Amino acid sequence: MRILGIDPGIAIVGFGFIDKNGSKLTPVQYGCIQTEAHTPEEERLLHVYEGMLQLIDRYKPDAVALEKLFFNRNVTTAMSVGQARGVLVLTAVQRGLHVAEYTPMQVKQAIVGYGKAEKRQVQEMVRMYLKLSAIPKPDDVADALAVAVCHAHSYTLNSKINEVLRK
Amino acid sequence: MRILGIDPGIAIVGFGFIDKNGSKLTPVQYGCIQTEAHTPEEERLLHVYEGMLQLIDRYKPDAVALEKLFFNRNVTTAMSVGQARGVLVLTAVQRGLHVAEYTPMQVKQAIVGYGKAEKRQVQEMVRMYLKLSAIPKPDDVADALAVAVCHAHSYTLNSKINEVLRK
Repeated sequence: MRILGIDPGIAIVGFGFIDKNGSKLTPVQYGCIQTEAHTPEEERLLHVYEGMLQLIDRYKPDAVALEKLFFNRNVTTAMSVGQARGVLVLTAVQRGLHVAEYTPMQVKQAIVGYGKAEKRQVQEMVRMYLKLSAIPKPDDVADALAVAVCHAHSYTLNSKINEVLRK
Repeated sequence: MRILGIDPGIAIVGFGFIDKNGSKLTPVQYGCIQTEAHTPEEERLLHVYEGMLQLIDRYKPDAVALEKLFFNRNVTTAMSVGQARGVLVLTAVQRGLHVAEYTPMQVKQAIVGYGKAEKRQVQEMVRMYLKLSAIPKPDDVADALAVAVCHAHSYTLNSKINEVLRK
């Protein structure tokens, strides 16, 4: 199965497509959609929307995973990221894809096995899981891959639980 | 010219289409798109998106006006409203429409002539401008019409200023 992990934002949207075969994870494509700071907000949203639709149509994921965002920052930022998040969720649902959401703590727990792990530890584990030579840059890309790997692990775990429950 | 005013939200999206001929304003259609509380967020966003696209395609506005939202409420709400707002802005830009944004204070100023007017005063003025027999319910609909009327007034004002400047 192919998983698309997304790190939402209005300036930079990180994305990472990974393939999961049994417990083996392979990176397919990763990078980011960027929008220019001095363009109108509506154009930036359209760019994010069209960019993500193109990626979904090209790499055809089976599932989409997003990080649930919590802010202790200001509400204007939350609103702005929320807008980008809205159009990203829309691209997935328009292609019939389910959107799974994970809190930062769930991502850390799934990858490092410890919900309060450092960002760097998470990135290093993701690099190892995906056999990458270096941690992808910027952080948004690494974060997108992290949430994809998190979904892969949660999926495996849920399948095993269901298997046990069926017996 | 036809103006679409929108009051964004995830449970209720208020909308109001009005026609502006000179200084005369006529209501065309108003109401709200509602989504069910216990359905997944992505489905609610899709419902809001498709509902608004249908309205735009049916009533063909020339401009769209939204209230700029400020929250002193919690950030989760801001995120959720932001997501709905994102897909609403997207519908406009996908149909080539410019999105004008007004703060609640600008709306009050444009309609009542006083930036700190009571909500009820604004609603009553909107009712009078549009010659409605009663204030539309729920508040989301009245708010959507208010921002449409605000845009109509601002548009007239800007045209006059440009006229003076051209002379």
